[in-house]
Amino acid sequence: MKKLLALFIISIICHGGHAQNEDSLFLRKLADEILTHSKAYENLRSLTKDIGGRLAGSPQMVKAEAWGLAGMKRAGAENAWLQECMVPHWVRGGVDKAFAIKGKTKKVLDVVALGNSAGSMKPLTANVVEIKNFDELERKKDQVKGKIVFYNYAFNPRFIKTFQAYGDAGIYRRIGPSRAAQYGAVAVIVRSMSQSTDNNPHTGSTAYNDSFPKIPAVAIGLRDADWLSTALTNGTLPVTLHTNGKFLPDTIGHNVIGEIKGSEFPDEYITIGGHLDSWDNCEGAHDDGAGCVQTIEILRAFKALGHKPKRTIRFVLFANEENGLRGGTKYADEAKAKGEKHIFALESDAGGFTPRGFGFTVSDAQFQKAMQWQPLLAPYGASELSKGGGGADIGPLNRTQGTPIAGLQPDSQRYFDYHHARNDTFEAVNKRELELGALNMAALIYLVDKYGL
Amino acid sequence: MKKLLALFIISIICHGGHAQNEDSLFLRKLADEILTHSKAYENLRSLTKDIGGRLAGSPQMVKAEAWGLAGMKRAGAENAWLQECMVPHWVRGGVDKAFAIKGKTKKVLDVVALGNSAGSMKPLTANVVEIKNFDELERKKDQVKGKIVFYNYAFNPRFIKTFQAYGDAGIYRRIGPSRAAQYGAVAVIVRSMSQSTDNNPHTGSTAYNDSFPKIPAVAIGLRDADWLSTALTNGTLPVTLHTNGKFLPDTIGHNVIGEIKGSEFPDEYITIGGHLDSWDNCEGAHDDGAGCVQTIEILRAFKALGHKPKRTIRFVLFANEENGLRGGTKYADEAKAKGEKHIFALESDAGGFTPRGFGFTVSDAQFQKAMQWQPLLAPYGASELSKGGGGADIGPLNRTQGTPIAGLQPDSQRYFDYHHARNDTFEAVNKRELELGALNMAALIYLVDKYGL
Repeated sequence: MKKLLALFIISIICHGGHAQNEDSLFLRKLADEILTHSKAYENLRSLTKDIGGRLAGSPQMVKAEAWGLAGMKRAGAENAWLQECMVPHWVRGGVDKAFAIKGKTKKVLDVVALGNSAGSMKPLTANVVEIKNFDELERKKDQVKGKIVFYNYAFNPRFIKTFQAYGDAGIYRRIGPSRAAQYGAVAVIVRSMSQSTDNNPHTGSTAYNDSFPKIPAVAIGLRDADWLSTALTNGTLPVTLHTNGKFLPDTIGHNVIGEIKGSEFPDEYITIGGHLDSWDNCEGAHDDGAGCVQTIEILRAFKALGHKPKRTIRFVLFANEENGLRGGTKYADEAKAKGEKHIFALESDAGGFTPRGFGFTVSDAQFQKAMQWQPLLAPYGASELSKGGGGADIGPLNRTQGTPIAGLQPDSQRYFDYHHARNDTFEAVNKRELELGALNMAALIYLVDKYGL
Repeated sequence: MKKLLALFIISIICHGGHAQNEDSLFLRKLADEILTHSKAYENLRSLTKDIGGRLAGSPQMVKAEAWGLAGMKRAGAENAWLQECMVPHWVRGGVDKAFAIKGKTKKVLDVVALGNSAGSMKPLTANVVEIKNFDELERKKDQVKGKIVFYNYAFNPRFIKTFQAYGDAGIYRRIGPSRAAQYGAVAVIVRSMSQSTDNNPHTGSTAYNDSFPKIPAVAIGLRDADWLSTALTNGTLPVTLHTNGKFLPDTIGHNVIGEIKGSEFPDEYITIGGHLDSWDNCEGAHDDGAGCVQTIEILRAFKALGHKPKRTIRFVLFANEENGLRGGTKYADEAKAKGEKHIFALESDAGGFTPRGFGFTVSDAQFQKAMQWQPLLAPYGASELSKGGGGADIGPLNRTQGTPIAGLQPDSQRYFDYHHARNDTFEAVNKRELELGALNMAALIYLVDKYGL
């Protein structure tokens, strides 16, 4: 009996070792394929340079959807289609402008209207009140009526992972305008959510509280924010803003979906994706052209290697992440309506930077299973596996049917230098870093497909 | 007795836990100091923009030494001095030029003479033979007489860590010219050691074998290398080169040294450094301005926090790493002559990129000790500790007295986009990434100083 048990254990170990070795060899093949034949970088060039910024509802959105569908087919999708969803249609309406008059000099301020914000539609001039945080707003709530509130809450450099600083500061952009409007402010200027050394202003969506007036709101570049703060120490200062943002009626948009059918469990789905929309003031290269071309690249690499996954793999370019999340919501709703069983979803929406790991929103048991793959992933860069994370577009799958989700976590140091700013261009993305992101995602998908989670 | 033992164990655990917590708190203080008050980025700006490229023997070398000494003093060095050493003095002598005549068109080729190479001194025209590797050279050794040998050995994208690709391809730059001269070649063109998407040529030192003629040698940008390779498929092609490199007599250079005296073991030394010299065709920002300003930053942060190390810490900007290693050699020789006990040395010479870990050339027992610190370092980025590594300038310390050494290992994906090329400028360095490198090095030095290795 003991001998039998020993043999049994040895056979498990050998089998385990064999599988591990087989996996290791396949991941090496994936790496060679992606690092020598990747189309991700050239695809990113065409998305960013031929189409550019592609906000929901814009003509560029429509072009990008056609680009994505053609890309899925070219990469070898067995099925590829557009999944319709209604999307919001916010337009900037012109060039955002701001200036201050200090003494006899006019200081032009580099600003960009916040996404979803209402334009002033004509020049709006008022004195500015600097507010460091919401506590100070409460203390000074009697002083903001008729004024422009300037939220000068700095991106905290002490956070090692910059997404924590974004989580910390982002609230001023999202709910700051309505909080100021509640006390009678006529407009808001928000310090950009960034630690960059340049002066580019960073947009991003704001969300009005319907109980208060929808006042104009802009983000301001960091150098100009510092200038404004210094200028205000010498007393009040009038600033003139002129923005033109407005909503047009909702319009038709689409998720772009490509598929490889599962060979053993075709009714079990694994989703991998990024979002196709971007803000209009940039090329949307890191956010999230990178995630889109990585998604297409994984499809291409699987097909090029003749890999036949057990489960059905869906490659999805989601619509309207930036200012509505209608694409991700639609995808989850339709999955639920059709009774599709989604066993895992993975998103890349943190930039095309060198990969460091994955963040998982899964059960403890599932996380332990994923941790066993760490030695297989580490040689390719994704050595840091942690709990927490996913992606905005796959969040609805997790919420509606408890699908385990994960997000690629590239190195975050440079992300907020570019995020939602005019310098988020093709040139800001490094070819190798982009490819390594795709490679690590492909590796994780291969493992989840083969072993389940 | 059992109770005593239990108490003893508990006291060790508590003490260990207490020490770990104390260390963790100090590293957090270091992080806050460096991430909020670092001078590294502004120091890098002045080194690269006010001085620029600073090859051994050049006037810029002299300026950089004065800059370094002033920087050490400003950062709070208790002692700071220049350590004299003779350095080689190679000069480029002019603008390197190359062109091909194909049909009726003249194609200008973007080239840079290899460091230490002998110039053609006048236009040199010869037909080009493409050689993929040394095996092919041996097969074609009868065909290269009177020709220009074009080593077109590609940087291998399959290596995940790019330094492996550099190790693999670098031999063609280092010994390729003499290998070709052995068979009668009149000049050499080497494909640049890079995987970049641009056309900048990358220099670096070559080493002639005195048995053969010292023929001119240039590196060529990757796009031009591909053009040349394609052009050669249609037959031979004459190329004209004109370079002017030569050696002047050796001259006086210096290591720049700053010091904090040890409070308990002043006669035990820990060295931390980078190299002050750079190639002349760039600003030497990543290579190795980054290592220099990180070294000064660690000194500044220790002093700003009032940290009193047990051992004497030496902060060293080494002379002449690029084409002679005279600074590192001198430092080790003098240490040996004075009987100094060097217990550890750490170098940053792999770029100012986001830190991933450290590579150690130490004993197994020392590596195990370092591995215990991994949980303390990981939150700041240096989670990957591995055996092997160090730095060229601290290598002599290891060789002459067996000093354990280590090197900061930043993410390597972008390094060879800039290495020894004209785009290795201040703008290529990210402020946060640079600071995090300094922070992780400071953390490791703190731990080695406190606990020994």
